[in-house]
Amino acid sequence: MSERNLYLTNISIEEALARFQKELPPLTTGVALLETAHALGRVTARPIFARNNSPLYDCSAMDGIAIISHKTRGASETSPIALCPGDFVAVDTGDPVKPPFDAVIMAEELQEQDDGTIIIRQGAAAWQHLRPIGEDIVQGEMILPSGHKIRPMDIGVLLSGGITQILVTNPATVAIIPTGSELVEAGGNLKEGDIIESNSYMLSALVAQDGGNPVRTPIVADDYEAIKERILWAAEHHDMALLCSGTSAGREDFAIHILREIGQVVVHGVAMKPGKPVILAVVKGKPVIGVPGYPVSAYIAYENFVKPLLVGNKAKGNIIQATLTRRLVSSFKHREYVRVKIGRIGDKLVATPLARGAGAAMTLVRADGFCIIDQNLEGVDAGATVEVSLIRNLEDLEQTIVSIGSHDLMLDIMADMMVGANLSSSHVGSLSGLMALKNGETHIAPIHQLDEITGEYNVSIVKKLFGGGKMALIKGVRRTQGLMVQKGNPLGIKGLADLTKYRYINRQRGAGTRILLDYKLKAEGINPEEISGYDRDATTHMAVAAAIHGGSADCGLGIQAAATAMGLDFIPIGQEEYDFAIPREFLGLPHIQAFMDILKSPQLHEKLAGLGGYTAENCGEVVYID
Amino acid sequence: MSERNLYLTNISIEEALARFQKELPPLTTGVALLETAHALGRVTARPIFARNNSPLYDCSAMDGIAIISHKTRGASETSPIALCPGDFVAVDTGDPVKPPFDAVIMAEELQEQDDGTIIIRQGAAAWQHLRPIGEDIVQGEMILPSGHKIRPMDIGVLLSGGITQILVTNPATVAIIPTGSELVEAGGNLKEGDIIESNSYMLSALVAQDGGNPVRTPIVADDYEAIKERILWAAEHHDMALLCSGTSAGREDFAIHILREIGQVVVHGVAMKPGKPVILAVVKGKPVIGVPGYPVSAYIAYENFVKPLLVGNKAKGNIIQATLTRRLVSSFKHREYVRVKIGRIGDKLVATPLARGAGAAMTLVRADGFCIIDQNLEGVDAGATVEVSLIRNLEDLEQTIVSIGSHDLMLDIMADMMVGANLSSSHVGSLSGLMALKNGETHIAPIHQLDEITGEYNVSIVKKLFGGGKMALIKGVRRTQGLMVQKGNPLGIKGLADLTKYRYINRQRGAGTRILLDYKLKAEGINPEEISGYDRDATTHMAVAAAIHGGSADCGLGIQAAATAMGLDFIPIGQEEYDFAIPREFLGLPHIQAFMDILKSPQLHEKLAGLGGYTAENCGEVVYID
Repeated sequence: MSERNLYLTNISIEEALARFQKELPPLTTGVALLETAHALGRVTARPIFARNNSPLYDCSAMDGIAIISHKTRGASETSPIALCPGDFVAVDTGDPVKPPFDAVIMAEELQEQDDGTIIIRQGAAAWQHLRPIGEDIVQGEMILPSGHKIRPMDIGVLLSGGITQILVTNPATVAIIPTGSELVEAGGNLKEGDIIESNSYMLSALVAQDGGNPVRTPIVADDYEAIKERILWAAEHHDMALLCSGTSAGREDFAIHILREIGQVVVHGVAMKPGKPVILAVVKGKPVIGVPGYPVSAYIAYENFVKPLLVGNKAKGNIIQATLTRRLVSSFKHREYVRVKIGRIGDKLVATPLARGAGAAMTLVRADGFCIIDQNLEGVDAGATVEVSLIRNLEDLEQTIVSIGSHDLMLDIMADMMVGANLSSSHVGSLSGLMALKNGETHIAPIHQLDEITGEYNVSIVKKLFGGGKMALIKGVRRTQGLMVQKGNPLGIKGLADLTKYRYINRQRGAGTRILLDYKLKAEGINPEEISGYDRDATTHMAVAAAIHGGSADCGLGIQAAATAMGLDFIPIGQEEYDFAIPREFLGLPHIQAFMDILKSPQLHEKLAGLGGYTAENCGEVVYID
Repeated sequence: MSERNLYLTNISIEEALARFQKELPPLTTGVALLETAHALGRVTARPIFARNNSPLYDCSAMDGIAIISHKTRGASETSPIALCPGDFVAVDTGDPVKPPFDAVIMAEELQEQDDGTIIIRQGAAAWQHLRPIGEDIVQGEMILPSGHKIRPMDIGVLLSGGITQILVTNPATVAIIPTGSELVEAGGNLKEGDIIESNSYMLSALVAQDGGNPVRTPIVADDYEAIKERILWAAEHHDMALLCSGTSAGREDFAIHILREIGQVVVHGVAMKPGKPVILAVVKGKPVIGVPGYPVSAYIAYENFVKPLLVGNKAKGNIIQATLTRRLVSSFKHREYVRVKIGRIGDKLVATPLARGAGAAMTLVRADGFCIIDQNLEGVDAGATVEVSLIRNLEDLEQTIVSIGSHDLMLDIMADMMVGANLSSSHVGSLSGLMALKNGETHIAPIHQLDEITGEYNVSIVKKLFGGGKMALIKGVRRTQGLMVQKGNPLGIKGLADLTKYRYINRQRGAGTRILLDYKLKAEGINPEEISGYDRDATTHMAVAAAIHGGSADCGLGIQAAATAMGLDFIPIGQEEYDFAIPREFLGLPHIQAFMDILKSPQLHEKLAGLGGYTAENCGEVVYID
């Protein structure tokens, strides 16, 4: 158990980074000579001075004629002057103007005569409508300083200044070393105990995005000498190394011992969550960063400790203010990065927290940003204004329908069918969805809430929670709920009466499917306490199906589409109505209109038919709730 | 002169784009199958569904032991339970947990005995510290919708979900066609009349930056049939074409006639400045955009009409609010894009307009953003809050020293030496610089302002303008001013007395060098009106040098370093002091401290010695002005 004592420090991110950078020699990556036209995004290694003027000579700024200004003196409406050929030359914009010509008169001010002379009615000032040599770029002037990242307009000006090749700094090469005997490459045949190695690829893409050159090595097994050799090789041949530690404390322990043997461990353990067990070390003068194994931890560690080495300390990203929808509890022990979804509801941006587990990589994909809870806070109350570091474009978020409530596969399909707008769903169950709607956290709440007295769906709960006149339901689908069981139904499960005999997996509290189960159990006089697994819950139909497919549960209630998707057998229990509760004021929003159009579209109905268990007859109709 | 009638329309940008997009069939670029690991930045062509669960099986979320929960029931501090081998198995985070084991107890809660048993003091709930199969990703669930741009975290999750290859849409290929007989490639020997073709390279880089695939063709001469053939080829083989029209109305006329012959011209002329004569046409169902020839016009036309076709209409960029420092006059006739520099002065962001000529490409490089003046405005007053569309990172701007005033080559050198901060200079002359300082538009004003009465530099003008106690001077350099003349001095110019005999080029009003000239002329009794070119002005020393080098002027007053840089002869007239006026309150800013450190550094003094004509003895010292 001694490994845990290795987390010696709980210092702040800023202090950890400062200590680390103090121990690192400056990054020197060499230079390369590139064609200017191919240097987009590269960084200048030296200041760049113009090789020629632009314009290259005094030239006309207009289409017209070049003239000798003193010969036009005195021309006016009442005493026009006729210029003979020789007193002028026709010029287009950009044409050279040479002595004795010293000014240009615009074409629209001229009156051409049949005899070849031109009448002018206004004198021209010397240098009028001329672009002098070097007006834009002067030979010898510095066009770009060193350390400048080349943009498209820089390329244009460099070429105009005669610079066809430039010295740029090489990108830092970053060795990325996945370690762990349990790791396998994606795409092979998987067996129990295998973990697909994916962090190194995410880290490679992050490095590439920040202008580095990622070099991912093959997976190294848990072998002290092999890992040591790989790190030494990386420090020898690359500018930086990331050691992807796998997930176990046992292996992290390994990394720290190796790094202590062959280099200097500057920091082990930082007051941040996720990502605490990060290691910041120096080996042969090169930074070596031990990146924790959980994907979200790896991401946070990268952003805080790898990115600053590549792009400098100042990049803070896009920070917005948003209203937090739920209380977030945190700890004085660390700064916490909570993934959130962001939506524009009415006149405010709201931030809704997602699952906080470091292993929940999918929430990193679903997140719109991170709400950062500082180390000196024990938490943040619902309704508070928080800062969110966005990982998605704010403009996209402005065009997003926020949906919080019950889960159905049709939401994913609809998200895919949205054009020019987005559908962002959080799956918390019907009742929590309605609460979110009440708190102004969402545009719509997908629900399938049975009234246990009337047997009616959705209308009565909305009426009860919101009172009169403000709400509507956009009708969704009728869908078939039933028991999902192993393919071929080896246990011969016939219906709810059998649940007490087998291992059940339930849905979370507040989920419509759980309420349906309770209703049916009551009707059949079955005591929930007799059902093994009644307290084991999952948050989506698909998660229930996966547990049954994986063999850790024998059956669970859910929708037919989930059983079909996972190749399970299905015993129908009944039909229910899955609709979208919405405040009437949102019905006119353009992205809600688009949402209703999709609900009514034959394309959607066709796809639902393919999933199985759906009836879509009133889909997209609006029912106003008195 | 009939070409001008071809600008038939003066419609708004929005209407022009809407008309254009209405005529365009949807962009279909085909799909490609890519390795997931190499798909960063590409766009999904289909929704992507997980091929496997993640985790792949129920697994431990902790390091510890897997146990059978009902065998731990009742354990407590007072009645601990001993688990025998077989009742538990050791597990690391991520290890599979299989029946009969159904929960995990953390390593830190265990007490290992010498006899191999383990003492526990708390019962374990079923499923405790287990990550159920599919907790993160469920097989069959949609990981990404179609039309999604792949980010690093997406790559990690796709691989975890077993997706090793994905279908992505191909980037749009954009043919970029430079036309014009006067155009030459950069890097060759230049002769009078040549114009270096650079717009196509800027446009190529813009296309690449926006995810397109630019295909630049060789320059096409002004030949109707040749240009027509090239456009037809582009429309046949590419998804889009940009026709770079050169700069003359004659050639733009060419383009419009060709496009009318072989396709449909949807828009010719848009109410924007720069960029008005843009052409939006459709040839063989493909968009063909006639891009005006001036670099800034080309940039504005790209941003408004090409970018939306590549990335959609919604990308508005990074808009900030800033205080305008000078009145901007515009016209009801168009929406104007004015390049501005942005700086954080005290507690506000200020926007200072740069030169507005469409040919001033260098200002596109120097600009921090565009201030957009709407078509319904005749101008914006100084002090008004304006919206600025940034083309540089706001964080970089926050760390920038704003310098407005007199020009010296040392500013470029210092800009290059700044580390972790930036120096942004506008060259308007000493007096305008001091005015900017007074108006809170700049941190420092570089000046060399002679007091004509005392012969003293800089102190008295600052005292006079600012009154007591608030200002300081950071001492710069003593530099040699003199007459720049052609190499070898073929005209035998000896001094100021000769100026009435030759073609002079002056500096702009308010420039210290012009004030020095006036002072010297007065001292020598020379009447400025007798000097040919006294009214012709340039805004930098280098621009004066370029005019002399180019032969359009015989001599001009300026600093020795400019003459040296341009290979001119130099006749010294006198020395002057070039210092930096600064409000005392700014002296403590970290980037001003860095600026003073550079002024004091031997590295700078060495570089100044290389330029010639500088003395740096008090460089970086602070003189407080009472």
